Amino acid sequence: MTRIDIPDGSLFGVANLPYGVFAPPGAAPRVGVRVGDSVVDLAAALGDDVFARPSLNAFMAQGHERWVEVRSRVTELVGGEVPDAAVFGVDEVELHLPIEVADYVDFYASEHHASNLGRLFRPGAEPLMPNWKHLPVGYHGRAGTVIVSGTDIVRPCGQRKAPDEDAPTYGACRRLDIEAELGFIVGTPSPLGTAVSTADFARHVFGAVLVNDWSARDIQAWEYVPLGPFLGKSFATSISPWVVPLLALEPARVPTPAQDPEPLPYLREDEPWGLDIELSVSWNGQEVTRPPYREMYWSPAQMLAHLTVNGASSRTGDLYASGTISGEEKNQRGAFIELTWGGKEPVTVGGEERSFVLDGDEVVISATAPGTTGRIGFGEVRGRVLPATESRR
Amino acid sequence: MTRIDIPDGSLFGVANLPYGVFAPPGAAPRVGVRVGDSVVDLAAALGDDVFARPSLNAFMAQGHERWVEVRSRVTELVGGEVPDAAVFGVDEVELHLPIEVADYVDFYASEHHASNLGRLFRPGAEPLMPNWKHLPVGYHGRAGTVIVSGTDIVRPCGQRKAPDEDAPTYGACRRLDIEAELGFIVGTPSPLGTAVSTADFARHVFGAVLVNDWSARDIQAWEYVPLGPFLGKSFATSISPWVVPLLALEPARVPTPAQDPEPLPYLREDEPWGLDIELSVSWNGQEVTRPPYREMYWSPAQMLAHLTVNGASSRTGDLYASGTISGEEKNQRGAFIELTWGGKEPVTVGGEERSFVLDGDEVVISATAPGTTGRIGFGEVRGRVLPATESRR
Repeated sequence: MTRIDIPDGSLFGVANLPYGVFAPPGAAPRVGVRVGDSVVDLAAALGDDVFARPSLNAFMAQGHERWVEVRSRVTELVGGEVPDAAVFGVDEVELHLPIEVADYVDFYASEHHASNLGRLFRPGAEPLMPNWKHLPVGYHGRAGTVIVSGTDIVRPCGQRKAPDEDAPTYGACRRLDIEAELGFIVGTPSPLGTAVSTADFARHVFGAVLVNDWSARDIQAWEYVPLGPFLGKSFATSISPWVVPLLALEPARVPTPAQDPEPLPYLREDEPWGLDIELSVSWNGQEVTRPPYREMYWSPAQMLAHLTVNGASSRTGDLYASGTISGEEKNQRGAFIELTWGGKEPVTVGGEERSFVLDGDEVVISATAPGTTGRIGFGEVRGRVLPATESRR
Repeated sequence: MTRIDIPDGSLFGVANLPYGVFAPPGAAPRVGVRVGDSVVDLAAALGDDVFARPSLNAFMAQGHERWVEVRSRVTELVGGEVPDAAVFGVDEVELHLPIEVADYVDFYASEHHASNLGRLFRPGAEPLMPNWKHLPVGYHGRAGTVIVSGTDIVRPCGQRKAPDEDAPTYGACRRLDIEAELGFIVGTPSPLGTAVSTADFARHVFGAVLVNDWSARDIQAWEYVPLGPFLGKSFATSISPWVVPLLALEPARVPTPAQDPEPLPYLREDEPWGLDIELSVSWNGQEVTRPPYREMYWSPAQMLAHLTVNGASSRTGDLYASGTISGEEKNQRGAFIELTWGGKEPVTVGGEERSFVLDGDEVVISATAPGTTGRIGFGEVRGRVLPATESRR
């Protein structure tokens, strides 16, 4: 038996206890909980086979009461002694995609981001569309290309047409960007024909991860009218390996910014589900922006209520992301196209000028939030960009 | 042993042999092949457990050579005597969703449809966007709400705002529509970072189904700018239960209409993959339109090449639909919003005027194509509309 050491100031103390899927050296992936710099093998420690699987889905499908019970048992477990065979160092294991993604939806819930993108993509027009303050705008993305932090990103190819070009050309993306987002994972499904009310949010959503919604801005600009982003986004969406339980985020709850006009009744909330989460984005090791989640206009409870208001079912493993998190200030913008204003105002990272992401660049998004005892961490979502492969052309 | 009787003129003769998932009375769902008015239980007839599953995915994942081999064995089997216990009447079994849907993408490949929708949604502007003839426009839909023919459609609720209204209201959709489409199912996956060439189409795509992409036009019109259709589509997408193998569609291959401008090299085809499939749409039992698939501008091989040109992976069970199939003539339009020109030119069905779909209405899409010996059928995709449930508001 061993007592797990939690370093002072660790963002993975007992107030956090995020779930992930890890593989010990030479063994199959299974569910674990991160504590300090250790990972606890839950199947081994609790003797429950629901954790001996390569995704969190079976556990998440057991529902909210079970999530409360397991969190309580894990809290007790890591406060005492844990069987040696159930404890691994986080550096000695391989971290996998924590969930089997069912449907993936991406929202657009930051007013600052939507306004900035409106100005950049539709100069001269009203930055916000007339619908924006009435509903959380969103669209479906590609579930099959959601990948775990650390997976390399191959620069995508496709059709691009600059405004001054007569016709589109095929080639590697010239304006590769990131979007720093938070993603919410559905645990308890809802059947076809049923809307999930804002009050039921916490019974359905299991937890949250960091998301990097990689974006090929030139491909996106040419393709997205009228049916929305497609290949400009579908090549890769990276998520962090640790799913922070919604139960750990209670101390982070704050009201959303004032919503005017008042939303329709199905989008109203009795309790605040804004979240006081501070993100940080590093570009080649240098922090370039600190997006504040608390400024997001629409809450995740409103997003889920909207997503299901038409009777669409939701499934265990559904992932919906917030959209880019941007604050009011320039150094709070969560996408490089905003941060560098379409490339016109480059930033300096490691002594080099950057507007969009170059081959070899590495981007890391991390985040922390207030927990019951000190701050808790989301870990990071990391990705390095590799050159395009144009072998087929 | 029994010899399967195939009625004269059956659309399910030996030139077709579509696959589906069926449940005999009181038994679990499994894979079958339709022959005439019978269904052959493949696990029982061939003694192969890959067919003793509730979806085609495991079989489809075995790849193109295996599809050829099984088709050859089934052809031989149904030409001779089949064990009694492996044969069911199609009317005595329950038909299930044939595949586990991975990602669902919807294209927009009919020039007539895209032009008509452009005129209706953006009056006064160019009907086709500048990108339309350069790439097959598409977007991701909701995989979790793909349902099998026969499942009732509950009229969706959501936000609608008519042009003459100041603010949106919540309520039941007032402009419920259908879209008659063809859907293509990926059997052989392609890994992240790899594009599927047009020449590799038939090695990846297993077969085709009919699709009814139910559309709430008022919800869609209010929400779709700038990120595309979302709740206006995500409440239900119906597919036919029988997957017609691409191998059965060889005699249906025709060139696409001339493409001008010439597409970029990654979209060019050495062999024609247009398909001469004739659809029919019935509204409360009366045929109202006959959309011709052969007029589709973009081929399914071009759609898959485009879908993966950015390196997006594809998975076994991916479904991508063609978008509404509309011909040049009014009685060939595959969506009611086009057929009735936004409701201004109602049609008469069963003695009643219709512009959009009313509660209690039933819509049936069917299709046939030339086969090696006589025509083959896709069966039908059928759906009846039930009144909205607004209990939560």
